Amino acid sequence: MKEIKIGLLGFGTIGAGVVKLLTKNSALLEEKLGARLSLKKIADLDITTDRGVSVEPGVLTTNVDEVLCDPEISIVIELIGGYEPARSFVLKAIANGKHIITANKALLAVHGEEIYAAAAQKGVEILFEAAVGGGIPVLSAIKGNMAGNNFSTVLGILNGTCNYILSKMTQDGVDFAEVLQTAQELGYAEADPTFDVEGIDTAHKLCLLLSLCFGTRVDLKDISTEGISSISAVDINFARDFGYKIKLLAIGKRDGERIEARVHPTMIPVNYPLADVNGVFNAIRLTGDFVGPVMFYGRGAGMEPTASAVIGDVVDIARNMLAGISRRSAPLGYLDDRVKKLTIKPMGEIVSKYYIRFNAVDRPGVLAKISGALGASNISIESMMQTARSASETVPIVIMTHEAREMDVRKALAEIDAFDFIKEKSNLIRIEDNLE
Amino acid sequence: MKEIKIGLLGFGTIGAGVVKLLTKNSALLEEKLGARLSLKKIADLDITTDRGVSVEPGVLTTNVDEVLCDPEISIVIELIGGYEPARSFVLKAIANGKHIITANKALLAVHGEEIYAAAAQKGVEILFEAAVGGGIPVLSAIKGNMAGNNFSTVLGILNGTCNYILSKMTQDGVDFAEVLQTAQELGYAEADPTFDVEGIDTAHKLCLLLSLCFGTRVDLKDISTEGISSISAVDINFARDFGYKIKLLAIGKRDGERIEARVHPTMIPVNYPLADVNGVFNAIRLTGDFVGPVMFYGRGAGMEPTASAVIGDVVDIARNMLAGISRRSAPLGYLDDRVKKLTIKPMGEIVSKYYIRFNAVDRPGVLAKISGALGASNISIESMMQTARSASETVPIVIMTHEAREMDVRKALAEIDAFDFIKEKSNLIRIEDNLE
Repeated sequence: MKEIKIGLLGFGTIGAGVVKLLTKNSALLEEKLGARLSLKKIADLDITTDRGVSVEPGVLTTNVDEVLCDPEISIVIELIGGYEPARSFVLKAIANGKHIITANKALLAVHGEEIYAAAAQKGVEILFEAAVGGGIPVLSAIKGNMAGNNFSTVLGILNGTCNYILSKMTQDGVDFAEVLQTAQELGYAEADPTFDVEGIDTAHKLCLLLSLCFGTRVDLKDISTEGISSISAVDINFARDFGYKIKLLAIGKRDGERIEARVHPTMIPVNYPLADVNGVFNAIRLTGDFVGPVMFYGRGAGMEPTASAVIGDVVDIARNMLAGISRRSAPLGYLDDRVKKLTIKPMGEIVSKYYIRFNAVDRPGVLAKISGALGASNISIESMMQTARSASETVPIVIMTHEAREMDVRKALAEIDAFDFIKEKSNLIRIEDNLE
Repeated sequence: MKEIKIGLLGFGTIGAGVVKLLTKNSALLEEKLGARLSLKKIADLDITTDRGVSVEPGVLTTNVDEVLCDPEISIVIELIGGYEPARSFVLKAIANGKHIITANKALLAVHGEEIYAAAAQKGVEILFEAAVGGGIPVLSAIKGNMAGNNFSTVLGILNGTCNYILSKMTQDGVDFAEVLQTAQELGYAEADPTFDVEGIDTAHKLCLLLSLCFGTRVDLKDISTEGISSISAVDINFARDFGYKIKLLAIGKRDGERIEARVHPTMIPVNYPLADVNGVFNAIRLTGDFVGPVMFYGRGAGMEPTASAVIGDVVDIARNMLAGISRRSAPLGYLDDRVKKLTIKPMGEIVSKYYIRFNAVDRPGVLAKISGALGASNISIESMMQTARSASETVPIVIMTHEAREMDVRKALAEIDAFDFIKEKSNLIRIEDNLE
């Protein structure tokens, strides 16, 4: 039986998952490939810690060149994460003619162009299904069976930490800080959670989704990114009263030769399937001009789901190798020379419906001044809610707008927040409730 | 630019969708393939009716051999439906060395083995993404990126007609016959709806899903199939009271070397994402040993979504042709000689939770006799509901059981239905609420 030899960079949680899958399901993979996948070398700085999976003697090494320079290894799986040394190792592996599989969204979001170009020049593959949505095979589907579609919209719940925190806040009615602490104790959030809760990880993943959906390069810095740390239990309760849930969404929309690319907390109607994506699950909802709306749902992270996506990429490359070909399709689905650089629409120009929570002293004329300022900026009010009255303290006043331009909303908010009866910065959450 | 020539058999709704996609998105497809897809011939008995899409002169023909025997045509798309003449045409196209794409689940569920064998012998492709779930790219995902998984469960809402009827019954509280009539008027149900509402179409699709998930041949007659015509508004209301919705589910489960394969109305908890799949939407939920649970959701039928899946298969074959290869993977994902024939577990041996509605005269001792008969067959009761009392008429008594063997439940039901206080055959609906 033919054998395809694989090298692994990084022996953390996902690396251990890959070892586990290749061990447990080797017979299954042989039934599908007619070839054996064998893990020849694993390079990691730490080769003594027990990862709970057994590895044959001699497989583990601290010398990365035993993976990068072994002529028998044809596929290198990069699971180190971060920018360096992952970038240098991947480029060296490509230079040595090895196909690359990576779960590293940060690397591709920032250095993708350089890496794709190097892979094209050497004629090797670069696949990264595990970088978005964990085990959910959405990138393969965009490049593969849905390739005939012009996509208009892609929405994603892509970060398990944020989704766990928002789900718990919604379920238990507690505030962000409290849930974050529990999440950290349970291992669902990092000690420094910035990367997750401020939406940066989600923006990395959106960057990859946009590239595949629209055939475009995207500069990460052009993606407007807001996290969930400003969401309070008060907003979640108001959202419920209006029939919405709050999710951290990655949003990509095509508008001619421009695209919207943004990550922010978003209100979606409770009866949308996306609203039921709770805890550590992820989902991606795309709209294509022929397929219409489709949604993919599954575990967005973790040892085993991520290993499933990595091995799916290995199977893809192995099928090519066994057929004697490479790069049956380019990394983004589009031919390399057809990848464009679409302009990202400035945030001020987007049009959305808005939830705005004002904190005002409860006295006559307040509502007239707020609604007057909104009207002067062409923002029309769909509904309004004021739940409590208080003579001495501030009360929350919530306004849901019809569709308005972001720059108009920001201008009106700046005016309103300057009124003497406003005691705290107003809070704005965008609404998506008009999906095809 | 290279050109790949395609022939189409059947110019109905989906055929027109394929023409529309190839016309509208030809530039997009060229950006992905670096080649032109051109529709050379369309064979149909009716070449005069306007399908709302424009076709160049000379493309339409009533002579099927102009597709099947044209040496320039390398891909034949079969959209005739049914067993014959679709089977003969497909076999002739294969014999002439053409790759096949079909949306015909009935054909593959019944004649798949013959067709796969013929395709293997000639070394041509046979792809059928559009046969299950319309535009939802689930088959590609099972064969492709999720190939590293041993699947334990596949559940599907696969028939838009049934799902529309059940959704309307749930939403409006009306009975089956009334909704069916509306569905027929709206074109969501055929004049003879048997094929859809009795679950036969769903069983065809389950047959294909089982083959891909478990690498097995399945005899359609071994799939236990019940439709939705026995579901009443009463059952839907009781389901709601217990926190469930009723859906027609295709269910496949692996249990060692045997599988469960069944189609029947099923109660699922309202908070399952599957419970929110309404109207003409379809969804497939799979559980793999590594990926865990994943769900795919989208439009299960219609001109444009189905065309999306057909063209996705065209892109797949075109990428192989352009790379100079064929059959990079076999039709079921498993090598042809590794496809097994797993035994289907007899329906009596399955274990499930059950909803049972008895129609009993309301008099003392009735509940004792019913629960006594259930207990004697090892069926334990999880909860019971009796909503109304009536001295003269029968009342519905609803029992939800813990897990029980189907043969025990059937035995107990036969005993209970023979009691003189039971005035109508009891109604049984299986429950799936313990999914991983």
